[in-house]
Amino acid sequence: MSTLRRVSSFLTVLSVFALTLTALAQQNQPQIGIAPVTLNAAPYTFDTAELHKIRVVIVARGLPHPFSLAFLPSGDALVTERGARLRIVRNATGAGGAQPALDPQPVAGIPATPGFRGGGLQEVALHPGFAGNRFVYFTYNKAGAVGANPNQRQSAVTLARGRFDGKALTGVEDLFTGDWSNGASGSRIAFGPNGHVFMTTGAPFGEQAQDSNTVYGKVLRLLDDGKVPADNPFAGKAGVRPEIYSLGHRDQLGLAIHGPSGAVIAAEHGPNGGDEVNVILPGRNYGWPKFTFGRSYEGPRMGDSPVAAGIEPPLVIWIPSIAPTGLTFYTGDRLAAWKGNLFVGSARRGEVPRTGGLERVVMNDKLEELRRETLLTELHQRIRDVRQGPDGLLYVLTDEDDGALLRIEPAP
Amino acid sequence: MSTLRRVSSFLTVLSVFALTLTALAQQNQPQIGIAPVTLNAAPYTFDTAELHKIRVVIVARGLPHPFSLAFLPSGDALVTERGARLRIVRNATGAGGAQPALDPQPVAGIPATPGFRGGGLQEVALHPGFAGNRFVYFTYNKAGAVGANPNQRQSAVTLARGRFDGKALTGVEDLFTGDWSNGASGSRIAFGPNGHVFMTTGAPFGEQAQDSNTVYGKVLRLLDDGKVPADNPFAGKAGVRPEIYSLGHRDQLGLAIHGPSGAVIAAEHGPNGGDEVNVILPGRNYGWPKFTFGRSYEGPRMGDSPVAAGIEPPLVIWIPSIAPTGLTFYTGDRLAAWKGNLFVGSARRGEVPRTGGLERVVMNDKLEELRRETLLTELHQRIRDVRQGPDGLLYVLTDEDDGALLRIEPAP
Repeated sequence: MSTLRRVSSFLTVLSVFALTLTALAQQNQPQIGIAPVTLNAAPYTFDTAELHKIRVVIVARGLPHPFSLAFLPSGDALVTERGARLRIVRNATGAGGAQPALDPQPVAGIPATPGFRGGGLQEVALHPGFAGNRFVYFTYNKAGAVGANPNQRQSAVTLARGRFDGKALTGVEDLFTGDWSNGASGSRIAFGPNGHVFMTTGAPFGEQAQDSNTVYGKVLRLLDDGKVPADNPFAGKAGVRPEIYSLGHRDQLGLAIHGPSGAVIAAEHGPNGGDEVNVILPGRNYGWPKFTFGRSYEGPRMGDSPVAAGIEPPLVIWIPSIAPTGLTFYTGDRLAAWKGNLFVGSARRGEVPRTGGLERVVMNDKLEELRRETLLTELHQRIRDVRQGPDGLLYVLTDEDDGALLRIEPAP
Repeated sequence: MSTLRRVSSFLTVLSVFALTLTALAQQNQPQIGIAPVTLNAAPYTFDTAELHKIRVVIVARGLPHPFSLAFLPSGDALVTERGARLRIVRNATGAGGAQPALDPQPVAGIPATPGFRGGGLQEVALHPGFAGNRFVYFTYNKAGAVGANPNQRQSAVTLARGRFDGKALTGVEDLFTGDWSNGASGSRIAFGPNGHVFMTTGAPFGEQAQDSNTVYGKVLRLLDDGKVPADNPFAGKAGVRPEIYSLGHRDQLGLAIHGPSGAVIAAEHGPNGGDEVNVILPGRNYGWPKFTFGRSYEGPRMGDSPVAAGIEPPLVIWIPSIAPTGLTFYTGDRLAAWKGNLFVGSARRGEVPRTGGLERVVMNDKLEELRRETLLTELHQRIRDVRQGPDGLLYVLTDEDDGALLRIEPAP
């Protein structure tokens, strides 16, 4: 047995052990969380700061754990069900008075993945040249060999694309496949101003985030064909994966481009406290797991310090945790008082399920935080994604068994 | 003019200038905040984590901006109206089926203070030997000379006590009066395990917090007659006020003793983000204004770093701000799933008025944080104090024009 294989076997055993410990720790947790809350069919009206009254309308429901939302120019919306199917909400914006409707037929062409935790479909996004090339990009956790633990499968984060014909993706191809790993987490993509694909990868095992020889716990930067751009910060450097754009990340379940500056902005889950939004800069280290504002679930603080020289500080911090999900900068006029604000979905607060909401962060023109507001907590839904529609309104996905697509409108 | 008086005049001019700048900065803020929400007369029922259903009952209303709550052994409750009167809610616990009622007659004996921002009554607390000595302690900002700005008055934080005869305080005497200052803020007191009075003082001007020659921006420790305990950490040290127990604090509007350990626990307002709960230890420096997790209201981070050697890190942090107010450790059996939890009132979130709530922090036996939950946000009230009643239930004060005393009960 080679040294490498011995190390690899040892790491596999260690990983299974770590997963077992995690499972045991979870068993010792008290039963927490509030009962499921079913959304009303009628619109909700809420008072808010600055904009004041908003109306929240259910556009579609019956989406099991939707993860990502991408609007087609037509006003239809593509929605991924996490780990499963790609769906279409027809007339999601209701343009011209057309009634929105969830197409019962999923979009064909998404690779099938055996059911395993964290496996399957994650993100969906349109290529910037979609109007001409009809390319829809998506990420998924590809299934590999079954590991030592029969409930566990190796997986690899994968970027893929296909051409959308209105019903199906054709010519689907994997553009980039990450390392095989014993843990899977969510990935997001966003197209930068020069058409590069930025892609987040989680670090199911913390040490991966500082390991420059794996693509996990990173933000990657790829060409739109999945190849490595020649000007990537570590391109050509020995012992560093050339796809890496930034390192030291935990789970990053939100990614967006700030239009005015072109800045790449990612939302990252801290552990117990210490959730972050980061400005992703080339070659920088964001510190996980050595530097974090969070603490372990057993109580003690984690890491050496929340800050350190050479470690990028977060742009926005949440303590306690909000489990940040999709994010977007609002650029529309329909919700004018919110123009330029950052919106971040939240799946839960302080470890309590069904206490999610929508975070609004007001920033100055240097992207420094001025103030915040939490919206939609009264709905008691986990919120998984937030996007701006082609109609200039905001749309959110609720991450529930009976997940919904919601629209936020100004109310009279 | 002596050098001291020149410096004093200069500081007065500087303070007025700073206040004017603050007023101008506030004028440039957009109009934020949601409309007033009037509480229903009927009880509210909420689902919560761990305990699940709770019922929230209005015990009394019509209390303008109540600040502090102290239960008498009888089940009556003393309530201060901030800057104004001391009131009694008769039968606040409703023991024996008696209806709670706000006594229309305020408690006589509280020193009158001319109306000025931050002046007048703040905290109320019973002496540990109240059953025998009937001593009620309170703090207030005593009015001094009118300063250079006619709208501004000098004030001094003051600890006082009187004997309560059921209707009035008699023999009221000031036990300790702080330095005359051009800015006033709230103070809290708590009696430690040895009967010492711990007292928080705000630092309206940040630099006071690191100035060992003023009592502001500190936690003080006094004997129950207002004198300085001989074993205070700085007693007998030249150039340091002997009342000082800890320094480097901003506004601390919550103070409680953790029963099992005797630890002194204070809630402290950070600036824009960076609210804290601290374990107050003798002679320690808590860093304000040099070290903070918060940022300025104009956006940039404040201070040198959130952490530093020799600076006590917070026990609990909130980012964004919640404007933490009164706090208490729950020790009762009626809300058994919450036993040992820390409860902290919150006056607002992210600079948005009327988005207050009640924070619940679950800790392990080392006082390390395990998880959190935010309660009562649906009420849209600023919450100013939280205390455990003699009936083992939790009571909170809402800081509104029509402020209320609320009781939290388990719901079937």
